[in-house]
Amino acid sequence: MARELRLNAFAMNCVGHQSQGLWRHPRDRSADYWRMDHWIELARLLERGRFDGLFLADVVGVYDVYGGSPDTALRDAVQVPTNDPLLVIPPMAQATEHLAFAVTVNLSHEPPLPFARRMSTLDHLTGGRIGWNIVTGYLDSGSKGAGRGKQAAHDTRYEIAEEFMDIQYSFWEGSWEDDAVRRDREAGVFTDPAKVHRVVHEGEYFKVDGIHLCEPSPQRTPVLYQAGSSSKGVAFAARHAECVFVGGHSRSKMAADVARLRALAVEAGRAASDLSVFALATVITAPTDEEAQAKFEDYQAYASKAGALALLSGWTGIDLANPDLLAAGAAGGNAIQGAAAAFTSGGPSRHRDLDSIAQSAALGGGGPVLVGGPQRVADELEAWAAEADLDGFNLAYALMPETFADVVDHLVPELQRRGRFKTDYAPGTYREKLFGRGPRLEETHPAAARRRRMPSRAPVTAA
Amino acid sequence: MARELRLNAFAMNCVGHQSQGLWRHPRDRSADYWRMDHWIELARLLERGRFDGLFLADVVGVYDVYGGSPDTALRDAVQVPTNDPLLVIPPMAQATEHLAFAVTVNLSHEPPLPFARRMSTLDHLTGGRIGWNIVTGYLDSGSKGAGRGKQAAHDTRYEIAEEFMDIQYSFWEGSWEDDAVRRDREAGVFTDPAKVHRVVHEGEYFKVDGIHLCEPSPQRTPVLYQAGSSSKGVAFAARHAECVFVGGHSRSKMAADVARLRALAVEAGRAASDLSVFALATVITAPTDEEAQAKFEDYQAYASKAGALALLSGWTGIDLANPDLLAAGAAGGNAIQGAAAAFTSGGPSRHRDLDSIAQSAALGGGGPVLVGGPQRVADELEAWAAEADLDGFNLAYALMPETFADVVDHLVPELQRRGRFKTDYAPGTYREKLFGRGPRLEETHPAAARRRRMPSRAPVTAA
Repeated sequence: MARELRLNAFAMNCVGHQSQGLWRHPRDRSADYWRMDHWIELARLLERGRFDGLFLADVVGVYDVYGGSPDTALRDAVQVPTNDPLLVIPPMAQATEHLAFAVTVNLSHEPPLPFARRMSTLDHLTGGRIGWNIVTGYLDSGSKGAGRGKQAAHDTRYEIAEEFMDIQYSFWEGSWEDDAVRRDREAGVFTDPAKVHRVVHEGEYFKVDGIHLCEPSPQRTPVLYQAGSSSKGVAFAARHAECVFVGGHSRSKMAADVARLRALAVEAGRAASDLSVFALATVITAPTDEEAQAKFEDYQAYASKAGALALLSGWTGIDLANPDLLAAGAAGGNAIQGAAAAFTSGGPSRHRDLDSIAQSAALGGGGPVLVGGPQRVADELEAWAAEADLDGFNLAYALMPETFADVVDHLVPELQRRGRFKTDYAPGTYREKLFGRGPRLEETHPAAARRRRMPSRAPVTAA
Repeated sequence: MARELRLNAFAMNCVGHQSQGLWRHPRDRSADYWRMDHWIELARLLERGRFDGLFLADVVGVYDVYGGSPDTALRDAVQVPTNDPLLVIPPMAQATEHLAFAVTVNLSHEPPLPFARRMSTLDHLTGGRIGWNIVTGYLDSGSKGAGRGKQAAHDTRYEIAEEFMDIQYSFWEGSWEDDAVRRDREAGVFTDPAKVHRVVHEGEYFKVDGIHLCEPSPQRTPVLYQAGSSSKGVAFAARHAECVFVGGHSRSKMAADVARLRALAVEAGRAASDLSVFALATVITAPTDEEAQAKFEDYQAYASKAGALALLSGWTGIDLANPDLLAAGAAGGNAIQGAAAAFTSGGPSRHRDLDSIAQSAALGGGGPVLVGGPQRVADELEAWAAEADLDGFNLAYALMPETFADVVDHLVPELQRRGRFKTDYAPGTYREKLFGRGPRLEETHPAAARRRRMPSRAPVTAA
């Protein structure tokens, strides 16, 4: 029998996330992103619908490639203004019991020790419901704003990331033994110092010497997400990720990518099923196909092509407003096709010109838009999952929170009727809910190498 | 008539903050620091008592000077384990309406743009109830753990801090004009790009080129706290701080320090009353003097002198467990006296030996412990405030949350009877509540120089 599908809501602490211009729709509430109750209401809605998690994207930087300025991004609220995603998680966790939170943090901006503490704190506060989407950065504007000039080259970024991960594993898994904290009022021992270990690391990019500041949290290492699609990125995901986020419009291309990813994980000594793969999709649904189609057409009237091109220019690094490019005929056409190919994640492009690329990207970003009543949309998701060997979907919004409310009210009951979606949450931490084991990472994961072994199992090794 | 006193609760996302060993007391709940409801209950208690704010200390690092290891700090839970303070603020803000949150963040660990975004996000989420205690770091262990080797020299740290502040002011005050964000659904303009400005900074320590990522928050710049007592630190406070946190056991020394600080602020073009000065104190109170005294003696039985010495060694950089030091007679005695003087903030030392220093520091840290019924304690606080020209107190806890509950139930009503404490909150943001003006920083503050002027007022200048 086909396995249960997982659903994450895909959002960002901003206005226009994947769909651009839709904030102008009278029912859209994404412009309230800065309010705490906006997020609390979303979390409650998602938990009512048994969503597995809320996946929070993040970008430290602005989309200023299009036209060589951030003007279009600002005018259309294309991922700017954007607030810090970590800070809305605790109040959402307080308002829910099971919903998990996978949050994007670009490690380029994080010193190792304070970052380890941030994530451990979130794991404590949420009772083990935290995941981290590991990002190494793609916008120069973020790097420059942060105070470091242009960002490091792509491959170097993954070398830095490997080293950074190793330090994090040492802090999270190796620094404090399970029974280090005793809270023994009688003996006067809060923590047994013999069971807390320094992390000493001298690498090419980092030099660290210190203990982790936090006692062990429920999961220790948060559930690890990754979304890289380059060869370096895929290799990194196969080694480190527990959940992988994929995009694109081509099922067959996605199927090949996912198969390759799972094969690489097996090569790295892990099981193919150690990876949970989520695909981007935007679902526009209603009680009937006709109503869903009408809704879609209503939304389309608000979509901003300029906003979409600003986003796409940022993603690809190609200024799609450049008049030379547009006038260059074949060469320009190739550049545009290159952008389209990047946008569709390498699948065969359905797009012949910039206008059709923009139209497609303006609603649903880099993934498919599935429009229909509950049966039709459920059929589509099942077909994607079957062909591409997916575990679930990161569902983006067209309208906030209407898109998620429609999924909760229409799609979720249909998937439940089909036995493809849980009717209640499994107990335990995020990792246990996702994989039926945990709460710690399995022994085949590289993080496990940084664990302290109990003397009865193996000699103590340096963290 | 004497002005109203301000009260902050002084705490940290850890177990033993200012008083050491008290976590062993049967009624102490500080070991629950990792739980969200622990903080929410504290916030509700403080708001019930009309506390102005919760001041959250933070240390990224461990106290490993004492005995050359963190063992004592770990055993006694001396500010370790410690979780991130920022992440407990949103749920506390959600549970309250007026209570403000002043949070310590060491700028050494923060890249400029992500930090500016973090604080703007908190200012948005709390509705303008956020303050920032500016710290440049004092523990080498934090710097090494963060991945940067030993920390910069003291004076250099303040140079870095000056540059960092200038960048923050540019992001917070200068990057987005007041009317930049229009949210105009009809016109399709979320943000008017002409009213958003790049921050371009090329300094000795930072290079920044980018816009702030957040739309203007209620206060823009958070209420600025500072606690430096060195000459560089005091000069920095006089220039930047709106609230200053002072410590020590000597009223006359504190009076001289506060007078100097206010004089320096005036020299810097500000008003003496632009600074709100808070002194550290620990209040142990009960309905009667006798009950308060009995409570104090009960607490003392749990105080840890070793924990106090670990804290003191970290603060002073002198290993007070060093047997050579202890055996060195006069020289050793001088070092110990030096530590005692540092601990008492330069006032005349009442302490003749290490044991009496430890005993004093173990309950109440580096400030006075005021023991008595409501009248006696209120008299003491009024006397401190009068002699040292204080605006209020940062009240540390002996037991969490019992110490604060006693203040709320016994001391606050007495201060209210005397007309020295508000019976209800003033409206508005933290800055408006504190100073009766705002929500933005006044024109004489250096942050104001980074503001965009409206064309009718002055020509546009570079941020």
